[in-house]
Parts: sequence; C-alpha cells; structure tokens
Amino acid sequence: MKDVAARAGVGLKTVSRVVNGEPGVTPDTERRVQEAIDSLGFRRNDSARVLRKGRTASVGLVLEDLADPFYGPLSRAVEEAARSHGALLINGSSAEDPDRERELALALCARRVDGLIVIPAGSDHRYLEPEIRAGVATVFVDRPAGGIRADAVLSDSFGGAREGVAHLIAHGHRRIGFVGDRPHIHTATERLRGYRAAMEEAGLPVDEAWVALGPTDPGHVRSAVTGMLSGPTPVTALFAGNNRVTVTAVRLLAERPAPVALVGFDDIELADLLGITVVAQDAAALGRTAAERLFRRLDGAEEPPARIVLTPTLIPRGSGEIPPA
Amino acid sequence: MKDVAARAGVGLKTVSRVVNGEPGVTPDTERRVQEAIDSLGFRRNDSARVLRKGRTASVGLVLEDLADPFYGPLSRAVEEAARSHGALLINGSSAEDPDRERELALALCARRVDGLIVIPAGSDHRYLEPEIRAGVATVFVDRPAGGIRADAVLSDSFGGAREGVAHLIAHGHRRIGFVGDRPHIHTATERLRGYRAAMEEAGLPVDEAWVALGPTDPGHVRSAVTGMLSGPTPVTALFAGNNRVTVTAVRLLAERPAPVALVGFDDIELADLLGITVVAQDAAALGRTAAERLFRRLDGAEEPPARIVLTPTLIPRGSGEIPPA
Repeated sequence: MKDVAARAGVGLKTVSRVVNGEPGVTPDTERRVQEAIDSLGFRRNDSARVLRKGRTASVGLVLEDLADPFYGPLSRAVEEAARSHGALLINGSSAEDPDRERELALALCARRVDGLIVIPAGSDHRYLEPEIRAGVATVFVDRPAGGIRADAVLSDSFGGAREGVAHLIAHGHRRIGFVGDRPHIHTATERLRGYRAAMEEAGLPVDEAWVALGPTDPGHVRSAVTGMLSGPTPVTALFAGNNRVTVTAVRLLAERPAPVALVGFDDIELADLLGITVVAQDAAALGRTAAERLFRRLDGAEEPPARIVLTPTLIPRGSGEIPPA
Repeated sequence: MKDVAARAGVGLKTVSRVVNGEPGVTPDTERRVQEAIDSLGFRRNDSARVLRKGRTASVGLVLEDLADPFYGPLSRAVEEAARSHGALLINGSSAEDPDRERELALALCARRVDGLIVIPAGSDHRYLEPEIRAGVATVFVDRPAGGIRADAVLSDSFGGAREGVAHLIAHGHRRIGFVGDRPHIHTATERLRGYRAAMEEAGLPVDEAWVALGPTDPGHVRSAVTGMLSGPTPVTALFAGNNRVTVTAVRLLAERPAPVALVGFDDIELADLLGITVVAQDAAALGRTAAERLFRRLDGAEEPPARIVLTPTLIPRGSGEIPPA
C-alpha cells in the first residue's frame, strides 16, 4: 500500500479509501491510485492481492466427497466463517482421488485464492509447498497432511472408536466386528486402532475375520457384514467405521430376525428416531475451527503449524445397548 | 486453432497434438505453438480459452445450500459429468441469498469458468447477460432463471405435489395441511399450487389455516405443524414441501399419540426404514441432465434455450397410507 501511495502521490488513507470503496475520493485521484495498483502488478501478499484483484478475498475448500452428508455441515460452517470475514468460498471435490485433489488444489491456487482448506484424499502434499511458500495459507481438516508441516483440525478417531467399542464390551459383547473405509485413509486406520485398543484393554482376542477395511459402497459393506455374522464364531455386535457403513449396516440388520448390536462412527440424520447409537463428530465445529485457523493465518498470525483435535461424543440411543443374542 | 497453426507455421493436427498433450511433436515445434497461442492471447471461445489457459477447462456450480442433503447427489452428478468431459468443477453456495448468488456467479466468471450451472437463490438473473453474451454457457437447475432466457432443468414440482396430495385424499383424508418453503422460492409455490389443484379436483375446500409457507428450520416447521394439528378443524394428514420440512414433521409426529398421515416431497436417507412415503426427485438425474446440456452447449450446440422437466416418483412406504384418525 505504501508503494501504491508513493507512486500515486497520495496518502495511505486515500489508497485505503479507494481499495475499500469508501467515499471522499475524487474520480481523478481514484484513477491515479488504480493505475498505481495496476502498474505495481501482482504481489503474493494478502493486502496486495486484494488491492490488485480489487474485489473480495476468496478461500478455497477441497472436499473429498460431495455426496457424503458428513461434509455438508462442515462446508457450511467454513462458508459462514468465510462470509463473516468478508471472503468468498470456492469449493471443489476430489472424489477420493489423490490426483484430482492435487489438480483441484492447484487450480484453486492458480485462481488466486488467499487460503486453502483441504480434506485430503492423498497422503503426499509436498505439491503444495511452493504455494504455501508463496503465501497461500493452508489448513487441513478431517485428515492430516502428508509430507509437509501444516495446520490440521481433526476428530479424535482413535479415542472415539475405542470409546464406542468399549461401550459394546460394557454391554456384554465379546465378539465384535469392525467395518471401516479403505486402509490408505487415515481416519479408517485410526478407528481400527481404537477398536483393537478397546478389545485388548478388555483382554478380548480379535479374530481377523471380524475386521474388514474396504470401499464403503452398499455391496462391499453387505458382503463384509454378512461374512462376520455367519461362520463358526459370528459377531454379536458391529462397530461401523463411518456413516456410509452405518447406513448399510442398519438396513442389513433390519432384515435379520435376531438383533445385533451396532455403534456407528458419525451421526446420521434421523438416527435418533431409528435408535442408532453413534460416536458423533461435530462436523460443523471441524469446519469452523479450520476456518478460524485459516483466517488467523490470513490476518498475519505467525504460529508454528499445529494439530487441533476435537473429541467426538458417544450418544446411546438403543442399538449399542442391545445385549448379545 | 487455425490462427495458431498459421502463426506457428505448422498444421492444425500439430496444434491439436500440443494442446492435447499427445506425443509426436518436437520440443522446438511445441515451443513455437505455445508462443503462437500466447501471442494470440485470450479470446472468449471455448477452444481458444482452453488453448490460452493451457490447462483443463472448468465449469462452475452455484449451489443454494451446502448443508441440504438434496444437493449432494446433484453436485456429485455434475462433478462426474464434468470429469468425464475432462473439466474441473468449482462450486460455491449462495446460502439462499440473491446477492451472494450474484457475487459468486460473477466471481466464478471472473475466474474464467467456461460454463456455469446455477441453482438460483434470486429471481432476477439479468446480471448474467453480459457473461452469457461473452460466451459463458449457462444452465439453471432445480429452479428457473428470472428475467433472461436460459436453459433450465427442473423437477415437476406442481405435478409431484398434486400426485402426493391426491394419494392422501385417496386414503380418505379431507383435511390436509401443506407446509412449504418461503413463497419467493419457485419450487415452494409450484408445490403449493399442486396441493391446491389436488384439493380442488377432489372438491375439497382448503382452510387457509392448513397452509404455511416460510422458513424450514425446525422451530418454524414445528410451530406451523402444531397449529394445523390443533384448533377446531385439525388436519388428519400433512404434505411436507421439502426434505427439511419432512425431517422435522417426522420427529414431531413421532411424539404424538395418534397417527397423522404424511407425504414428503424429496426422498431422505433411511426414509425406507422409517416408512416415510415420499414424492422422490431424482437429484442425480437433475445434475446429470443439467451438466449434459451445459457440455452440449460448450461443444457448440446452437439450440434455443429449453426447459427440461423431470417427473418425480411417488414411493408409498407407510406414512402416506395411514387412514384418517
């Protein structure tokens, strides 16, 4: 702004007025300031960027799956935070494809977002290093970054799963199945680790036939759950690793004559009416916390990258309190 | 492309190879073609834009509410269509604010999207005329454009609501309530029109105390439904104008001793297990159809703007087949 003021031959306050569209500037002065901004060109520094763009700042959000209802409240919270900071939010989705995540994140940077919130699909984010060095504030949410140091806002997947499985054990279950997302996904392996910890803490052995990590489409989940419920040592309870698994498990269990206990990670709309016990993440709080961190960085906060972990909440509603058959 | 070929002194096929990243071009020729592209500069024509940007084409999607699960499958379908056309999808949400819709749509245009799919919050889209003239293909979905001629892909809100209300009448109901979204929303008034048509066709009077249009947050819906269920002529059945209304109505009706019939517009996850009768829109088909229309326009189709209307499907599951108390 100082350079612009010097080049236009005006005071800092006048530059500020022009940039913020405030009254009290003659058309001629406004033109001189704009010309100074234009001739000084693009510089990767937030105020200069807003100057050059001459419009609201913007932040980008790289989602993982547009159709997963978990990300709705998260995105909405990021959007509300962006709005309260006068910024525009632009989203895109990687659809769980690391190449797509990279393409999208870089495309948003090329479109000059001031900051980026990423729900990572991949595990190597070194491709973002040049952008971060160039001044793009970056915060990861739901899953941590890989290969770089960056802020991350996560739920305690390990602790939440351990608590949910311990809840089933407390209700008398000894043979408990775990159905989770694919093993390259951080939250999936963390939740599996929580399952194993709870079983071990209770002195219960884990039959590997009770553990399934894989795609969470209905076909795969049905086949995994059906396998665990048959055979010589069928499970009497299930821990569902995310809301996609829970929805299919609830449907499948509703078709069976004998009740099977169920605790799911993530809350689901209308789960209260269906009596589904869940370990609920606060998706809106994840989004809000990530956005607050991002805007603090955009406001110039120079703190080292941190990992902020939110604690999920066990909500007993009936399905997790069914005793073993 | 002809200009580029002429300036670079190569054939059209060679330009095409460079642009599409195909093999068989020497580095020197590639450099000449790139220089020709750069010196010819930006022109608002799809192939030229892709040429100049030297990267994947992109399309923008202006959503209405990131937290409404109806838009998840719609966005996902647009994204899949974009990907199959080699384009990147960038979203944003208006959060039901016409000013925000305008700001976002123009911001996406400023970031040089090739096309725009808009779920409108506002009813005046003349602000998009300069962009459309400049070559940005634009398709509206879920709700029509206002003030301009443009493609629109809609569900038959009128016909769907009429069928749902006729279904309740066929099950013996004479006093039926309608709870819908705010009256400036096209789908809300179309569905109300469908309700009135079904009542009139059955020769049934409508008590205006049975009709509520307004915000669809739980508080407003609870108060509207509670009003209709009390008083001298309480309703025996409800038609819920969208999924936000249905979710609250289902919760409220579950708390009451006497059963009240319910049909909701829009399907809801797990509505099958809860036995909720719905008039289901195919959200994915809306998104896919809009995207196909957009990409046909980007491929140069010169058809007049059209309105494409998809028919929703009544799915009886129990709640809509309850007889009057």
